[in-house]
Amino acid sequence: MFKQFFVKGGVTAPTGFFADAEKIGLKKDDFDLSFIYSEKIANVGAIFTSNKFLASPILHFKKHKIEKTNFILINSKNANAMRGQEGVSDIEKIFDVLKTKLPITNPIMSSTGVIGEPLPVEKIINGALKFNLTNKNNLNAARGIMTTDTYPKEIAVKVQLEDGREYFVGGMAKGAGMINPSMATMLAFITTDLKIPTEKINELLRELTKTTFNAISVDGDTSTNDSVFLLANGEKDFYDEVSFKATLEIVMKHLALEIVRDGEGATKLVSFKITGAKTNEDAEKVAKKLADSLLVKTAFFGQDPNWGRIAMAIGASGVSVSEEKLSIYYNDLPIFVQGKNLWNDEVEEKAFEIMKNKQFVINCDLGLGDGSFTSYSSDIGYKYVQINSEYRS
Amino acid sequence: MFKQFFVKGGVTAPTGFFADAEKIGLKKDDFDLSFIYSEKIANVGAIFTSNKFLASPILHFKKHKIEKTNFILINSKNANAMRGQEGVSDIEKIFDVLKTKLPITNPIMSSTGVIGEPLPVEKIINGALKFNLTNKNNLNAARGIMTTDTYPKEIAVKVQLEDGREYFVGGMAKGAGMINPSMATMLAFITTDLKIPTEKINELLRELTKTTFNAISVDGDTSTNDSVFLLANGEKDFYDEVSFKATLEIVMKHLALEIVRDGEGATKLVSFKITGAKTNEDAEKVAKKLADSLLVKTAFFGQDPNWGRIAMAIGASGVSVSEEKLSIYYNDLPIFVQGKNLWNDEVEEKAFEIMKNKQFVINCDLGLGDGSFTSYSSDIGYKYVQINSEYRS
Repeated sequence: MFKQFFVKGGVTAPTGFFADAEKIGLKKDDFDLSFIYSEKIANVGAIFTSNKFLASPILHFKKHKIEKTNFILINSKNANAMRGQEGVSDIEKIFDVLKTKLPITNPIMSSTGVIGEPLPVEKIINGALKFNLTNKNNLNAARGIMTTDTYPKEIAVKVQLEDGREYFVGGMAKGAGMINPSMATMLAFITTDLKIPTEKINELLRELTKTTFNAISVDGDTSTNDSVFLLANGEKDFYDEVSFKATLEIVMKHLALEIVRDGEGATKLVSFKITGAKTNEDAEKVAKKLADSLLVKTAFFGQDPNWGRIAMAIGASGVSVSEEKLSIYYNDLPIFVQGKNLWNDEVEEKAFEIMKNKQFVINCDLGLGDGSFTSYSSDIGYKYVQINSEYRS
Repeated sequence: MFKQFFVKGGVTAPTGFFADAEKIGLKKDDFDLSFIYSEKIANVGAIFTSNKFLASPILHFKKHKIEKTNFILINSKNANAMRGQEGVSDIEKIFDVLKTKLPITNPIMSSTGVIGEPLPVEKIINGALKFNLTNKNNLNAARGIMTTDTYPKEIAVKVQLEDGREYFVGGMAKGAGMINPSMATMLAFITTDLKIPTEKINELLRELTKTTFNAISVDGDTSTNDSVFLLANGEKDFYDEVSFKATLEIVMKHLALEIVRDGEGATKLVSFKITGAKTNEDAEKVAKKLADSLLVKTAFFGQDPNWGRIAMAIGASGVSVSEEKLSIYYNDLPIFVQGKNLWNDEVEEKAFEIMKNKQFVINCDLGLGDGSFTSYSSDIGYKYVQINSEYRS
């Protein structure tokens, strides 16, 4: 057995990790260039977007086949995407200079912002040269990666094993809502002082991303820059799989849900818990169709307990379903049970009360097997349209 | 060779077809129960929604394996969906009564409106008994099927063959924007006085739906009730494949584009013309991803010439693409050509001018082959959110 405690410090909570940010003028007057630094060189794994147009930072990471690093540099307001070979060579230019001044090994870059614009190479170099690599200003770093996010997103967990050994897992992320005036990017950075081989890091990220970062939807679009990084610097000379996997899942789930909660203009966090599907894959398809449905999201914004839209989205998911076996509950309130419509004025009133909450669960049982999956969605309202339709000026 | 003339009359333009509507109180004070009647029994084919929960009218059509009919009854405000066996038996009840009073054979029902509510059987019967089956009030019929549509959608074409023979094709449709307070339904009804076997009708509908009704997107959701019917009553004792197929495509394309133009809160009709894909299937995937992308649709609403979002959606389509081979044009204005970003202040100004139009084309050449497909989309703005989020009252 092991114990978990929420602690302060974000990505700097694990031993030997540091972070801070500078203001280099990409945002009006806020942090826009962040770093994460580790005294010991850390093993690093990553999961990237499924978008076929990979942004330059991702191409740079792949080109250099980075498996160990002690430095991640992150800028906001510029995605460094759709820039061909120039985008990658800009990053190399930056690191060629920084390497002569800072003790960095295999540095990694990560970017979020407008697509297709030239990267402000000089500003980034000059800003990075001001970094104090032994600062633990995790909140500055979390602010520096924000775009349309309304608040920084952090978490840190201390894990205590039965034999008294301790280690930490920390994380920060920025939202999947679209950057104004350009596009969505989800970035997440996770640190731990455990000692974990790079292959194991990648294996865990692949597995846990499915039920966390890949189970959320703000608007169904997929950025060129989406990235999740995990750094393990081995300051603690051990690895405990059971407790780490459980803790990593908490950290990833927390950051993923924070992104949904802070979706552009979002007022609600809705979970779609699908059970009784023939397979887990079927359940996932249904859950994601619901989380992506514009009709469902706008109904939630309006607090309209319109179960017909839920049924529509399930039927449109491409999965074979049966009306007679379908059940829909809002939290624990039965709405439609095994093909029987229970809707009446009293049920509607209760459903409306549930939908007034900031967070609730739509439970759908397909009645066909043991497959299950849960997805997470924000609602979509006027503010989303406002943020994403304003002409750049 | 043949000539085509746009004429009046909608679905009643072809010889022997009649249509009208009644007000039965489902809408406040407007037509809500329509019919199409043919003196001669017509061959009928249909294409239905891919949603797994088929609405009762579709189940009724399939149950009775209808291939010939002279009567279609259409109500708005109630979808008669998610109602199990009761939904189908309600339709049978209605037709059992109507058959004793009206000269109808294998009658078909079609519905659009709120899901899961009991069908007002008595009102529908009483309304239908008032029909005068020899009226040609096609505009009333087109109004009667409207839900959130802001105008009725009709078309009729007279076709003149070289040898002097003539025939007609008529159609009406209602929009794919969601009915308030429930969900999207697209209904279309096409009539012709040609003599066409039912199998041929179904073959043509399957083929032409791909590039017309299935190439449009308002919000990416798929209704339980979507239906396209084609009736051929053989008043003209011949069939001319070449001219009919060309004319049917015009009729279907016109009705499909009218639906997009009248999308809920829509201010623009945008065509995504994809060329240079490896296959037509690839082109279709890219075109549909663009037409469904919320980020792209809100950018159009804001008249923001944000080509990064176009690139993002292409990259997210799941089709293999290459940045160096991709070209993007707004109408004929080059924005990004074979990997080179041509964006500058002058281009931005020109792009902005193009986006002010009510209708424009986004041309994307993938540079990989001969595959092509064109999709059609509305923009999404505040009014869409308003229409779809208001609590039912």
